[in-house]
Amino acid sequence: MNTFGRIFRIHIFGESHGAGIGVCIDGCPAGIKIAEDDFVSDLARRRSGALGTTPRSESDEPKILSGIARGMATGSPIVVVFENQNIRSSDYADVSISPRPGHADYTSSRKYNGFNDLSGGGHFSGRITLGLVVAGVIAKKIIDPIKVEASVAEVGGLKDINAAVSAALAEQDSVGGIIEGRVSGCPIGLGEPFFDSVESMISHLLFSIPGVKAVEFGSGFAAARMRGSEHNDAIITAFGDTATNNAGGINGGISNGNEITFRLAVKPPSSIARPQQSYNFELCSVEEMRITGRHDACIALRIPVIAEAAAAIALADLNLIQLAGSIG
Amino acid sequence: MNTFGRIFRIHIFGESHGAGIGVCIDGCPAGIKIAEDDFVSDLARRRSGALGTTPRSESDEPKILSGIARGMATGSPIVVVFENQNIRSSDYADVSISPRPGHADYTSSRKYNGFNDLSGGGHFSGRITLGLVVAGVIAKKIIDPIKVEASVAEVGGLKDINAAVSAALAEQDSVGGIIEGRVSGCPIGLGEPFFDSVESMISHLLFSIPGVKAVEFGSGFAAARMRGSEHNDAIITAFGDTATNNAGGINGGISNGNEITFRLAVKPPSSIARPQQSYNFELCSVEEMRITGRHDACIALRIPVIAEAAAAIALADLNLIQLAGSIG
Amino acid sequence: MNTFGRIFRIHIFGESHGAGIGVCIDGCPAGIKIAEDDFVSDLARRRSGALGTTPRSESDEPKILSGIARGMATGSPIVVVFENQNIRSSDYADVSISPRPGHADYTSSRKYNGFNDLSGGGHFSGRITLGLVVAGVIAKKIIDPIKVEASVAEVGGLKDINAAVSAALAEQDSVGGIIEGRVSGCPIGLGEPFFDSVESMISHLLFSIPGVKAVEFGSGFAAARMRGSEHNDAIITAFGDTATNNAGGINGGISNGNEITFRLAVKPPSSIARPQQSYNFELCSVEEMRITGRHDACIALRIPVIAEAAAAIALADLNLIQLAGSIG
Amino acid sequence: MNTFGRIFRIHIFGESHGAGIGVCIDGCPAGIKIAEDDFVSDLARRRSGALGTTPRSESDEPKILSGIARGMATGSPIVVVFENQNIRSSDYADVSISPRPGHADYTSSRKYNGFNDLSGGGHFSGRITLGLVVAGVIAKKIIDPIKVEASVAEVGGLKDINAAVSAALAEQDSVGGIIEGRVSGCPIGLGEPFFDSVESMISHLLFSIPGVKAVEFGSGFAAARMRGSEHNDAIITAFGDTATNNAGGINGGISNGNEITFRLAVKPPSSIARPQQSYNFELCSVEEMRITGRHDACIALRIPVIAEAAAAIALADLNLIQLAGSIG
Repeated sequence: MNTFGRIFRIHIFGESHGAGIGVCIDGCPAGIKIAEDDFVSDLARRRSGALGTTPRSESDEPKILSGIARGMATGSPIVVVFENQNIRSSDYADVSISPRPGHADYTSSRKYNGFNDLSGGGHFSGRITLGLVVAGVIAKKIIDPIKVEASVAEVGGLKDINAAVSAALAEQDSVGGIIEGRVSGCPIGLGEPFFDSVESMISHLLFSIPGVKAVEFGSGFAAARMRGSEHNDAIITAFGDTATNNAGGINGGISNGNEITFRLAVKPPSSIARPQQSYNFELCSVEEMRITGRHDACIALRIPVIAEAAAAIALADLNLIQLAGSIG
Repeated sequence: MNTFGRIFRIHIFGESHGAGIGVCIDGCPAGIKIAEDDFVSDLARRRSGALGTTPRSESDEPKILSGIARGMATGSPIVVVFENQNIRSSDYADVSISPRPGHADYTSSRKYNGFNDLSGGGHFSGRITLGLVVAGVIAKKIIDPIKVEASVAEVGGLKDINAAVSAALAEQDSVGGIIEGRVSGCPIGLGEPFFDSVESMISHLLFSIPGVKAVEFGSGFAAARMRGSEHNDAIITAFGDTATNNAGGINGGISNGNEITFRLAVKPPSSIARPQQSYNFELCSVEEMRITGRHDACIALRIPVIAEAAAAIALADLNLIQLAGSIG
Repeated sequence: MNTFGRIFRIHIFGESHGAGIGVCIDGCPAGIKIAEDDFVSDLARRRSGALGTTPRSESDEPKILSGIARGMATGSPIVVVFENQNIRSSDYADVSISPRPGHADYTSSRKYNGFNDLSGGGHFSGRITLGLVVAGVIAKKIIDPIKVEASVAEVGGLKDINAAVSAALAEQDSVGGIIEGRVSGCPIGLGEPFFDSVESMISHLLFSIPGVKAVEFGSGFAAARMRGSEHNDAIITAFGDTATNNAGGINGGISNGNEITFRLAVKPPSSIARPQQSYNFELCSVEEMRITGRHDACIALRIPVIAEAAAAIALADLNLIQLAGSIG
Repeated sequence: MNTFGRIFRIHIFGESHGAGIGVCIDGCPAGIKIAEDDFVSDLARRRSGALGTTPRSESDEPKILSGIARGMATGSPIVVVFENQNIRSSDYADVSISPRPGHADYTSSRKYNGFNDLSGGGHFSGRITLGLVVAGVIAKKIIDPIKVEASVAEVGGLKDINAAVSAALAEQDSVGGIIEGRVSGCPIGLGEPFFDSVESMISHLLFSIPGVKAVEFGSGFAAARMRGSEHNDAIITAFGDTATNNAGGINGGISNGNEITFRLAVKPPSSIARPQQSYNFELCSVEEMRITGRHDACIALRIPVIAEAAAAIALADLNLIQLAGSIG
């Protein structure tokens, strides 16, 4: 469903080519300072523009409908909407007949019996993540002074990211990448095991971002090849600092005060200019398909700010839940 | 919190050395056939016994308290309890003073202000996963004929698993491993994006299993090094079969009818016989610690059936939610 | 919080004098036919105009932001917004100093530490119920052919409702009333006890409507004076029809196929032109207060369509949950 | 479903004649003192014994399975179980053929396709409320020093309760009653409108109690006959005390610091010794039925402690949620 969280609750809505998309945020404590300008920086990081990102531009102007007055959260739900400028295009009319490989055309058409809005990817468009970024900005304010930062670690296996993107573009192709995230200043004690461990909450949100194929914390997949004597992080100070951080700042699903670290893999965008094979459900045969228009060659470049939002949203909720349990 | 799911809802409870542990399962459709014998096989797979697993044995006898009559689900909550035989030991009295590296001793003591039950790991004991296995058995019945299977792919980087465990044991050490899961027979259309994608739901549960550090679907981390032309799965039949399965059976968070594939990394167990460094919060200094008793050298060996349970529970819930939306 | 429902989930937002108010509806099955015109009739019933209702008029024009394409639900969240025309008035600046008796001025100021938007009642304005009416229209479509109808049964103790309102108006006063609701065509089996009985779900929503002080089902308070021999409804047909309907169509929290009947009491509006006593928190003394402007003399007249919405929303959710459980 | 609450979450389970019934309580803050003895007094109030209550006795011995160690909540789920002594009786085999008037026999059989456990009312037995009482005891500790008290106000329309019960018994009949509840010491600010108003939360729980037909707060149904000038409660002190309390301690769904007052109507028990009409679904005709065995003549006598539990549980959850929002 389109809701996440227990106390800090976010509801995502919108379709790529509908009237607007946005987010409804419940549970933001009253008095948090929020101005429309606060969204500018993170929205800009998400927006296209860099090499390898789609040159199509939307203004991405957030409009606050409710929940903020005199520059502060009122305690009632915050709704922020982005109007779509290019509405109801019919460019996508035939994607249910010839589903684009790697896209949700086929699965969403079947799930919703053809009633879903396929234009521009509909509710499956990456554009939906605008709402996540907005919620992330507010979440970051709630968890302050905890800081969440994410960046691109590599693209196509290379640290030289421009080179990797250029190579892919030259071949009318796209390329994947890896994002690294770090949370500093997190107090000891966030996380609600058994089910709502820090990892469970963050991964739940990360895996809702279109294109994410893998998530790891701390040592991650490398842990599978390690010995316990090597993997165990020895506590070395009275503040709980550890000599190593294979745990990625989390033990038993609960933050341990050290930096929370995570990595995620983003697949190469599915829309490529090169001809591809696709099944035509009208002709009942495989045929060649060409996807026209301009698209991201490397969506991973736009993911860091969304990954930050995911982590911040999860931690904001866990933070508020932890407060609720602090009367014992 | 200790609840997961929207319609098929499970509530995990219990501490390692309390009176009992178990699970409360709400939302199981009435009429599903369930006998106590049905749990035997999966519980045996979880239980210790193989090389590298702890020789301590609990009978693991499930006792059905409610929700099943005449061998069938009644429609009211199913509660299954396992009594603990070794209750209230005080072996663990000092783990809050000298927290064992890699364990939840330190984080849980801080989170719960010292009131948590540390005996045997308390609510953080791997023993809690008994409830997951029970819920998994019931979930598998609900999703039938969908089949979920998981197995150990490698331990310590080796396919020869016995060799890897023996080597670790010889050095009084422990070792991690990788589990692979496959879901076959899944219909097209399960998954509730934006937030409750198939990946989000399964990863949420997998990351609640103690020791899991990484989760990937389909191409996983390898996707980050791939080109779109290589990663896109071409549909080649009218049933939606794809030529490759980099998507791992999921597009846009929705099952596409192909095999759902996932992998997870399990860290080496934290309890090792070798001496380790730990911080003593009474003496305010780092000192050597030895963990006595018998422990798993490779917990990964016991995880496959738990990973199956996680996937089955997520799919059971998504399956029932999908039914609810099918009246349009 | 501002969310209700498990599968058919609604999220209410907005403040009286903010940019807009509305509702986000998740879980509406794809394919349900919905046009903007469908809201006209129920919105008109809610709107002011009759004797005793406020003459201030807002256009109440619903704007669909998402979730509907080509006249049908797409399966993704439906957001409907009403823009507010008179925004950010400062008429209410002093209600936190001299709280209006019977209003939420005092409690909301304290709860939200003064950060809540008091203008026009803010999130506590009756205007917020616009979103409920919209969700009710969609819920009625989902539960079709179940029919929900509510009407004013009495005002100020009189069946002659105009007389009661006129009398109150003549004395610059307001008056309360009773609403009766009936649900016909409801199949046997809706309701999810233990906690989510039909009564629990409907009353939860009814008691969220500003001004509702009491809710009863079937025999209601009269049951307290009845004998079992008189109260028991004998089943008299193979379809489950009963000779009497003291149960109000519900047994054990589950619909029994007979008409579901309920009644609710609505208090007299708190805003009256007559002078009243109020505490001035700046002067620290009780003083006389006069509330100016035009207000409803009898809000009960506008409640029936909102009560219908409440019942329809509860039944839509229970209906979808019941579908989910039907595979046993 | 069988879950209630957002942070303080309770899960009810069990059937009258299954192995056991009980409750799983999540979200109880660690460190709250809880001993098995704490349950004695409230369980005794719920138990049969008074004139008009069933003479059948169960020991009602609570057994703590988890979540409490060294006399204090550990922070993990608390499970309390009551073993049933008379299990799997077959006395109720034919209630699906000839459903007892007023009971859930007919509705539950249809809802669960005959798979539900009808013995002793199964999951619909009043015995299930044992779990509510246990959760109520813990909730009262969480909300301390807030006090919740409920008592029988009248039975069969009489204040002389013994007389009313005796009269009903003499005629082999049963009789209904009214319960009054009062919450004192409640701080200003509990309640989470729009949907989770204090009234919505308490009524949700009260209407899940078998036999409750009506709930009102403050002036309740009488409000419908009142004028605004009469109904409005003037604030008369700097602490928010009001001259009257028609609001029942709640404005805009939020507690205002005055006593919270509510009343509920309980129907006469459906099981009466007098012959009744019932439909026989095998013979397809109405016929006379006699219910044997011993039953409550006035279940209302046992409801006060359950109503207290309902109010305390709702307030405990609202209290913890309010804490979570207090960082603004």
